Amino acid sequence: MAKIRLFIDHPLAEGQAAPLDGAQAHYLSGVMRLKPGDEITVFNGRDGAWSARLLDAGKRGGSLELLAQVAPQRDPPDLWLIFAPIKKARTDFIVEKAAEMGSARILPVQTDFTNSERIRQDRLQAHAVEAAEQCGGTFVPEVADLVPLARLLDGWDAGRRILWADEARAGPAETLAGLPRGPWAILIGPEGGFSEAERQRLGRTPFVTPVSLGPRILRADTAAVAALALWQAQLGDWQGG
Amino acid sequence: MAKIRLFIDHPLAEGQAAPLDGAQAHYLSGVMRLKPGDEITVFNGRDGAWSARLLDAGKRGGSLELLAQVAPQRDPPDLWLIFAPIKKARTDFIVEKAAEMGSARILPVQTDFTNSERIRQDRLQAHAVEAAEQCGGTFVPEVADLVPLARLLDGWDAGRRILWADEARAGPAETLAGLPRGPWAILIGPEGGFSEAERQRLGRTPFVTPVSLGPRILRADTAAVAALALWQAQLGDWQGG
Repeated sequence: MAKIRLFIDHPLAEGQAAPLDGAQAHYLSGVMRLKPGDEITVFNGRDGAWSARLLDAGKRGGSLELLAQVAPQRDPPDLWLIFAPIKKARTDFIVEKAAEMGSARILPVQTDFTNSERIRQDRLQAHAVEAAEQCGGTFVPEVADLVPLARLLDGWDAGRRILWADEARAGPAETLAGLPRGPWAILIGPEGGFSEAERQRLGRTPFVTPVSLGPRILRADTAAVAALALWQAQLGDWQGG
Repeated sequence: MAKIRLFIDHPLAEGQAAPLDGAQAHYLSGVMRLKPGDEITVFNGRDGAWSARLLDAGKRGGSLELLAQVAPQRDPPDLWLIFAPIKKARTDFIVEKAAEMGSARILPVQTDFTNSERIRQDRLQAHAVEAAEQCGGTFVPEVADLVPLARLLDGWDAGRRILWADEARAGPAETLAGLPRGPWAILIGPEGGFSEAERQRLGRTPFVTPVSLGPRILRADTAAVAALALWQAQLGDWQGG
């Protein structure tokens, strides 16, 4: 049975105590049936993974004693994911997958063909936390607030290149082999793709590189995982061998 | 509005009629509100995509008139996906993603750490059909019946290599660049990975090549999409450019 992993937003240092909120205390004692003295693993996104001992857990919260660092902090490469929120379940899924695949930051955008006027940023952030808890990570990507794509591009730092998964570019894919290292973001469109105006703007923006994800039409969530995999294998921390 | 795409298990030829079963007739007339004379797109997995005109749709079924082929048949590369069924939603998801990403065949296997004793092959096959309908495909991968991994390997044709996504191989990934073309299958383990006995058998099997999917632990569904993407980009039909 794998040890329970919990994200806590608190500095981690040996011998210190860390507080649990009511939901965390309920999860540990009510759901997982842990008793005071039982050990879990915690991380805060900055200080690696730590073993911790449950001191107490009640209805309003509880506390842990931090024992020792058991894994160093490991941050993902400097890769962001920009995507247009779609149906709720698939939006949750994209955030989960981006966290698993090693995105450092997740940016939901409104596009011409996006229906969403708003997102529940707190709920999406909680999905990113849960993905890190489940997948042995020590880093949690920040989920940004929803902004219009045009405004995001207006304020974009041109030092960060954008890899645009262009669904109209069906057919053989550009290879990523020649692309420079450095900060990148992957841009995934909504179901239905980008509008002609958006396509024209993306096409003439110098820091945007279009790339094809093969001859079949992929759903947005599939395209996100596929593009993250290709980038990680070519430019990220999956390389070597 | 994109035209409705429907899989029908019937030969497609100009001027011929094709039957609709009760569920399809209900979907077209009851759900999508089509009238006789309206056009849809159909495919059967072999003969490309065809335009078709609705002749009639009632409670027990209906019929179409086939008009003309509108897209050629396009088969995926000779790539299979072997995976261990997990929770229902994620198993459905893996089948959907395998169809989108261009797997030719999907093989669920029982492993030492798999709980599933059985699968609903018909339900999984229906998911593969739906993915092809949604994603503009003309091919539907066959979902095989659940078999034990050991029995699958006993009867395996050594001419088809297996790319084993080995979750214990965290760290820099082998590059796929040197791998030979030809028939392949990707093998994804269950949550919790493979047992030591399974790992030993896979490790000494000459047609099995282990590969890492990076330093983070991926869920089985994420690993399936990521491995399919890397294979398609390197050895499949995403190449070129």
